[in-house]
Amino acid sequence: MQRTQVIGVDVGGTKILGALIAPDGSISSRRQYDTDLSSQETLLRALDAVVETLRVGHEVAALGFGLPSRIDQRAGRAVASVNIPLQGVDFRSRMQERHGLPVGIDNDANAATIGEWKTGAARDAQDVVMLTLGTGVGGGLILDGKPYRGATGTGAELGHIVVCRDGVECLCGGHGHLESYASGTAADRVARDVFGAGSNARDLVERGRAGEEEAVGALADIGRWLGAGIATFVNVFEPELVVIGGGFGAAGELLLGPARKVVAQEGLAPARDTVRIVEAELGADAGVIGAGMLGFEALEPEA
Amino acid sequence: MQRTQVIGVDVGGTKILGALIAPDGSISSRRQYDTDLSSQETLLRALDAVVETLRVGHEVAALGFGLPSRIDQRAGRAVASVNIPLQGVDFRSRMQERHGLPVGIDNDANAATIGEWKTGAARDAQDVVMLTLGTGVGGGLILDGKPYRGATGTGAELGHIVVCRDGVECLCGGHGHLESYASGTAADRVARDVFGAGSNARDLVERGRAGEEEAVGALADIGRWLGAGIATFVNVFEPELVVIGGGFGAAGELLLGPARKVVAQEGLAPARDTVRIVEAELGADAGVIGAGMLGFEALEPEA
Repeated sequence: MQRTQVIGVDVGGTKILGALIAPDGSISSRRQYDTDLSSQETLLRALDAVVETLRVGHEVAALGFGLPSRIDQRAGRAVASVNIPLQGVDFRSRMQERHGLPVGIDNDANAATIGEWKTGAARDAQDVVMLTLGTGVGGGLILDGKPYRGATGTGAELGHIVVCRDGVECLCGGHGHLESYASGTAADRVARDVFGAGSNARDLVERGRAGEEEAVGALADIGRWLGAGIATFVNVFEPELVVIGGGFGAAGELLLGPARKVVAQEGLAPARDTVRIVEAELGADAGVIGAGMLGFEALEPEA
Repeated sequence: MQRTQVIGVDVGGTKILGALIAPDGSISSRRQYDTDLSSQETLLRALDAVVETLRVGHEVAALGFGLPSRIDQRAGRAVASVNIPLQGVDFRSRMQERHGLPVGIDNDANAATIGEWKTGAARDAQDVVMLTLGTGVGGGLILDGKPYRGATGTGAELGHIVVCRDGVECLCGGHGHLESYASGTAADRVARDVFGAGSNARDLVERGRAGEEEAVGALADIGRWLGAGIATFVNVFEPELVVIGGGFGAAGELLLGPARKVVAQEGLAPARDTVRIVEAELGADAGVIGAGMLGFEALEPEA
């Protein structure tokens, strides 16, 4: 008998990554495409093609999609998206009908969190906070052993906690949010301030890894902002684990060391002493693996 | 047939309030005592006496206690307390054995939240954040239609989110926590700064209600800190409702008006537009009613 597998599709603003995903998170038949941004209809057709291509010759039980979109889980709707043309689409029912399979959807940060939880750094944990440091700061929550999505599925915007009232403007239009200080975009700004107009976050991290004092100090300051945010989550959720992922999250201990010091100072006992703050394990595959897990979730009866 | 009722006991640092509580939250046979702080054993015996007194002549199905303590729900343990002598007590099993009844326990802020949720301002809501502004800032969460208590039951310390990294020192030893700016203690400090050494939070609120400009302005500033905290919770939980209670919370619209403006600016759509920010309804009874609800919860089979 063939092992159950699903198709996971991680939809980004520049790339679409699709693959067959097994229950243990292992990946086969990986395909990557440029994202067709010309219209909603062409994007949906491109996603259909990804699914159809991956299905050829395989028994597939369900589909899962991670979308860079605000999701209404009750309606299965992609309400709005910033970087792709999906606005007010009944995505889940459209995909169910088109492909005749159960479909799970979620936003990309939740999908990555579920990926790390099912098969990565947060395996077997009941209470997990994940932050993805990329263009923005995304986040996901596992509470009491299951994904928490807020009242309608748009919650857990963990990058938009206020860590400094009236602080630096955020990409969302707010001020002093964690994203204003700890995203890759914020690190680009810091890199320009320290090393001049040509510098960016990647450069800052490289210089930090090489031990350049100014870069280490600048990353430590970003790490302390990250720590203030993590302390907030530690005091609210008392998680076992905080997982830091995303492209800029790869700065690793250059951020996490200083962040841990702030958590030790601002967190309450016992959570501040028991929480582990670790790097994500799945790298760029977290999203597609998590998307696959959404497919498996769609196979389960409602809890 | 007699209607099912339980005993709720709200244990504070100065007063113990006990009562018979019906499923709809209605209160009868209310008793109030000064808290005996001389030792753990005398406090426990005083609580026994409250229960025994209230039981006389009544059929009681369960007991519920709201404690100003860090609770380990799995063990039913009062791990530590700041204002009363309960340290490392297996409180639930002790009370079960002593009184031969099912027992529910929780910390006082969670109990108040459950009271407002079952019978007060948050009736019928699925996702609720409650903040109690008193000596500190306590908080409770209802998520997906049930109380959220963190991994072991000590979570949801909502007063200790960081709203200003390296800010004003908090009672907990941290810095720039919501409690540092929006508690009654913080309002005492503000009152002294504005009106001199003899002034306190109560005075500040009275002057604000009388329309004194300086007091209104000072409360509005506290309200904006509160709003920064509420915006954080709105972005994380997308709650239907944020309920503000506690003694200093009675400042009401003097705080909530300015807080709503910050939420409108710092919250993400759609949550910032749909959330309602309201005053608590049960006043000083929230704790004892919530304690009663913990008793009813102890009667239910495990979910």
